[in-house]
Amino acid sequence: MPSVRIVLVEPRNEGNVGAVARAMGNFGFEDLRFVRPCPIGEEAFKRAKHSRELVQNAKVVETLDEAVRGCSLIVGTSGIITTGEKNYVRIPITPRQLAERLKDFDEQVAILFGPEDTGLSQEDLMRCDILVHIPASEAYPVLNLSHAAAIVLYEIHAAEVPLTGPRPASEEDKEKLFQFFDDLLDAVDYHDFRREKTSVMFRRMIGRAVLTKWEFHTIMGVIGDAVKKIKKLEK
Amino acid sequence: MPSVRIVLVEPRNEGNVGAVARAMGNFGFEDLRFVRPCPIGEEAFKRAKHSRELVQNAKVVETLDEAVRGCSLIVGTSGIITTGEKNYVRIPITPRQLAERLKDFDEQVAILFGPEDTGLSQEDLMRCDILVHIPASEAYPVLNLSHAAAIVLYEIHAAEVPLTGPRPASEEDKEKLFQFFDDLLDAVDYHDFRREKTSVMFRRMIGRAVLTKWEFHTIMGVIGDAVKKIKKLEK
Repeated sequence: MPSVRIVLVEPRNEGNVGAVARAMGNFGFEDLRFVRPCPIGEEAFKRAKHSRELVQNAKVVETLDEAVRGCSLIVGTSGIITTGEKNYVRIPITPRQLAERLKDFDEQVAILFGPEDTGLSQEDLMRCDILVHIPASEAYPVLNLSHAAAIVLYEIHAAEVPLTGPRPASEEDKEKLFQFFDDLLDAVDYHDFRREKTSVMFRRMIGRAVLTKWEFHTIMGVIGDAVKKIKKLEK
Repeated sequence: MPSVRIVLVEPRNEGNVGAVARAMGNFGFEDLRFVRPCPIGEEAFKRAKHSRELVQNAKVVETLDEAVRGCSLIVGTSGIITTGEKNYVRIPITPRQLAERLKDFDEQVAILFGPEDTGLSQEDLMRCDILVHIPASEAYPVLNLSHAAAIVLYEIHAAEVPLTGPRPASEEDKEKLFQFFDDLLDAVDYHDFRREKTSVMFRRMIGRAVLTKWEFHTIMGVIGDAVKKIKKLEK
């Protein structure tokens, strides 16, 4: 995982602070700093749940300079962007694009989140190397602070640790399944004029479902049993 | 956008309920139902912010059946999954895979979130057509309810409304910029033995930065001015 420090600039709601810490724990991050925060007490710890220690160990500083010390890349976040290209301070990338860029980045990164009501100041944004904006509804684009942090951290985590799902069934497995299904159509004396259509329908259906090996074996077992039973009864 | 209904099954914290409503407003969703919820009052409305109406208009029902009525696809969510392939009830896809599947889906979809402490019951999960799990830290995989909802809705929104950023500089633009930079190297009598390296370095740097048209014009202006100034002074 890239080495990411979360910097909350003047957070005003301790509940949000705790919720950000929880999201950090959920996605495997632990370096947290606060710049001139609101008082942080029980509500923050309650919302942090198992990330309580992150709140406890967070460094509290007075200036943005101290907060980003040692960081080679400073990432700002904003719920408000402009459409004009010339306001370069507010030209953003998406959280996914950020995650993509951080993949090969070995240096320390700071990601800044501003106060709940106003967001990062223009001055703070000008310190940033990259601005990230979460694409959202035009009618209500400003996310809750901890939601924004959760989404950005989720993307960084997802880029590093892709979900390793169960083994998918192979092409060979699937062909065997289609053969079994055709045997079943034979066994039930399926109408000739619908046969091809139904066979293709089954193939498409299985294609969309993207079977795991285990699902493939199970469904093939059921179809095989049905064919065997019919043949036995017909004898 | 696909027609998505969010169903909160036995939410126990009204703050979370409000926060889920806010996330729905942020990503353009408005159909919300509660199954046997905790009392919902001021804290929920406070956290919902501009999505207050979503909480007010949410339908409160007694059973999951009523909550998912009219839905053609029922999506469950869980912070806990099993690694075994045979526990088919808990084989998940990622929020991104869900978003991909919903893109061409015209029918009503219900996405279920369980109680904060226990998650959806095995019985509720068995009603689901798809299970979604947010890949997270193995040490602390269980997200806050509203964070989970925000991430799932963010993915569905992102799949539908890709960010249209500012116009990027064209290949032609960039070649012109590299020529200007080479002119500058000439103008400053740059060392021959470093010249090619520096030229390539500049090209790579610009490549990584992915310039917008406006940034391209601005930086080219600066370089052009420098070359002109040097030439004028040398005369």
